[in-house]
Formats: sequence, structure tokens, C-alpha cells
Amino acid sequence: MRNIKLTIAYDGTDYHGWQSQPGLRTIQQTLETAIASLTTQPASVTASGRTDAGVHALGQVVHFLTPSRHPLEVFTRALNALLPPDVRVLAAEEMPQAFHATLDARSKRYRYVVDNGQVADPFRVRYAWRVGRTLDAERMRSGGRMLLGRHDFHSFETEWPNRSSSVRTILDLAVARDGPLVTIEVEADGFLYNMVRSIAGTLVLVGLGRRDPEWVGQALSACDRAAAGPNAPAQGLFLLRVHY
Amino acid sequence: MRNIKLTIAYDGTDYHGWQSQPGLRTIQQTLETAIASLTTQPASVTASGRTDAGVHALGQVVHFLTPSRHPLEVFTRALNALLPPDVRVLAAEEMPQAFHATLDARSKRYRYVVDNGQVADPFRVRYAWRVGRTLDAERMRSGGRMLLGRHDFHSFETEWPNRSSSVRTILDLAVARDGPLVTIEVEADGFLYNMVRSIAGTLVLVGLGRRDPEWVGQALSACDRAAAGPNAPAQGLFLLRVHY
Repeated sequence: MRNIKLTIAYDGTDYHGWQSQPGLRTIQQTLETAIASLTTQPASVTASGRTDAGVHALGQVVHFLTPSRHPLEVFTRALNALLPPDVRVLAAEEMPQAFHATLDARSKRYRYVVDNGQVADPFRVRYAWRVGRTLDAERMRSGGRMLLGRHDFHSFETEWPNRSSSVRTILDLAVARDGPLVTIEVEADGFLYNMVRSIAGTLVLVGLGRRDPEWVGQALSACDRAAAGPNAPAQGLFLLRVHY
Repeated sequence: MRNIKLTIAYDGTDYHGWQSQPGLRTIQQTLETAIASLTTQPASVTASGRTDAGVHALGQVVHFLTPSRHPLEVFTRALNALLPPDVRVLAAEEMPQAFHATLDARSKRYRYVVDNGQVADPFRVRYAWRVGRTLDAERMRSGGRMLLGRHDFHSFETEWPNRSSSVRTILDLAVARDGPLVTIEVEADGFLYNMVRSIAGTLVLVGLGRRDPEWVGQALSACDRAAAGPNAPAQGLFLLRVHY
């Protein structure tokens, strides 16, 4: 069996997230159907991590085992012909048997996009969170700094059964204004459920002036989801890349 | 009655074009409904020109007469609260009674976007024409030059009853490559039905090497729609701005 790694991008708007669910259109099912059709073998695809309904990816990584002998460029070309246009294979590589898209990921980087222009951008409805009042990116940056490093991020996760530890390391957290957009990029060795969306919701409260930057550190220390801000909506979130 | 000019932007994907049609969701109907709801008076809105189903606008201009005494900033704010998020009012101005959005337009500028990257961009499915083989923008530029100036553009229109003349003046035609995108911008004193889409379809044939740049001039001289290339699909077309 060959172990194939794919880097994929998708517009998550019209999908019920990554993970297969009976009767629902998901990225995983869509990809497995295309691979099965190409290789004439049932396929089981493992991603670096799940993405929720409406969340997008610019560089999700998946792997699957296949007996198929197609050259790698055929996987890219033929899968893109079989897949719907809102899911694309960007690259295919053959990996050692041991490679595992979830377990071998050393870090991931997400981008959260806020549409903060004077008037909402009609072309960003599916790709950003609309916040009408002007955000102070410098304040958001100060707040974000409190989250850098290794911490228990329990305040920034939607609880999920069987999660053994909420300790993660944020390697980078960058807030930038680009015209009408405010983007928050977070890189960490791993992410808890809704971690980026709760960080974005928290930093937006700081950017609006409703909370001080120092409050972010207090929310972190509290180890209590209720201490931090709300989850920002799904459509602003993009999985940018996965490092192995 | 006051004469109000609005500059609007819209994502045309989910609309059956500009013009009101019974039983169909159109931009005109959507806007008239919002204005009627704000002013509690039936509203009739006139645009600089129609856009087809799936065509977008970054700076469409419309006008309407209203007895309403709302300040201009209320028109912007309240209409944006009433409109769906894929239609936005960017600006409102009060104009002299004589101002007419269609008749007073001196020129318009359109952009046509081609997604010409190695792999189709899943986030451009609604906003570009996907062309997989690499386009030579320099050849397209040479071809486009043949169209500059005042000509009978009958080869570049889908025939439309009661059109008295197909003579128009193209003031600017720019072809640019921006990473994976090739954009064609056309500014003219007026546009025939499907004019930008047939120019885009024609220049793409030149960019693919299937036709020479000089052929564009021959197609123009032929004054025959069959002599030029096909209409490029609607989703790549954006009305950029209207000059008065």
C-alpha cells in the first residue's frame, strides 16, 4: 500500500465541516468519494484535524493508504476533475508508511478574518466576520501577546469529551490591519476545539474597547470558558498550513 | 421630490440579474423593496445599466425619486440594515432633479477576471472564469489594442432588439496578470449587450495561442458576431464604476 499525502484547499461554506456524518455533505466524504472513484477502491482519509461547518482551508493536509499505482500528478489532476470546484487538491506526495497527517503535525497556523470596513463587503459574507465598529488593532495585538507561549487554554475551548489536557503552546499570534480587514493569525503546536474562534471573539472585545488588553491574561488564568469572550463565527476562519 | 443617487456593490451570484422580473429575485427588486420599507412609499430605481444574472458590481450607480426627508446618512445606514448582506449601499448623494443614472453616464468601466493558476482557486468559483491552460497576457494586450477607439462593435454584441447603433468608443483596455489571475479592464462610453464578455472570450482565445492578436482586428471589422470569440461566463464580470 502507498501512503499518499494531499494538501487541499476548500471553501467550507456549503459543507457540514470536515468529518463524515451520515446524510450530510462533508469535505471528508466528498474527498473519499473522489478517491474511491479514481482508484476503484474504498478510501479512508485522515486529516491533520477537523474543521467545523463553514470553516475554510487554504492548506489542509490529509493522508490515505491506497494500492493504486497512479503517478502523483494523476492524483492531483484526476481528483480535481472529480471533485466539486470548491474543494481542490493543491499537491500530492508519496510518504513513508509511518506518516500520519494528525499525529505527525508539529504545528498548525490559522487565520481569522474580520471585515471591519465602513460598509460590509458583499464579497466577504462567506469569508469574514462582519464587525461594524472600528477595531483598534494595536490593542488587540497587546491582548494577543498575553496568550503567547505554553499555557492551559481551558478558557479558550468548547469542552469536548475525553480531552486529556488543555495545555498548548502558541508559537505566534499576529494581528494586522489590511485596509478594511483585520486579520488574526495564530500558530500553535495544537489547537483545542473552537480555540481560534474564542481567541478571535476575545480579541475583538478588546479591539472594540469593551475590555482592556490585560483582561485577556486574566481570562487565560481563570481556566474557565466563561471568563473569555464568545466564539467568533465560523465563516471567518481559515486553516492556513500544517507543519510536519 | 428629492433625487437620490446611490452607489452600490453586489455579489450577483444569487440574483437573476439587475432587472425586476416577476417571481425572480433580482437586485432591482431587492433594492426597491428595501427603499419602500424605509420610506413607506413605493420606489422605482433606475440603474446606470442592467447587469446579467451572476454578474457583480463594485460601483453600480442608481437613482430614485422620493418624498422622504431622511438625511443621506440614514439612507446608507438604514438601507444596509434592510438589505441582504450581498447587496450594499456604499454612498448616498442628493442630486439635482435632472440627474439620470442611465442617461447621464459618460463612461463605465468593467473588469473581467480569469482564474489562470495551476490549480483552480476554490474561493474564486463565484468570482472568476476558470481557464486551466496558461494565458499569455502580452498577446492578449496586443489583441486588445485593436479594439481601442471608436468602432462599430457589432461583432461583440449579442443582438438585442431596438438597438439603433453598435458604434461605441473604448477609452481604455488593460490586460494584467496578478499572480494566478488575469484581469481585463474595459472602459467605454457605453456598452452593448454582452460586449465585455465577448471581448474576454475573444482575448482568451488569443492568450491561449489559438488565434493571433491581429485576428481581433479582423473580427472587429467583420461586423458579425460569429467572427469573434464566445461569450465568457457571467461570474467573472464586475461593473467597477460609472463616470458622470
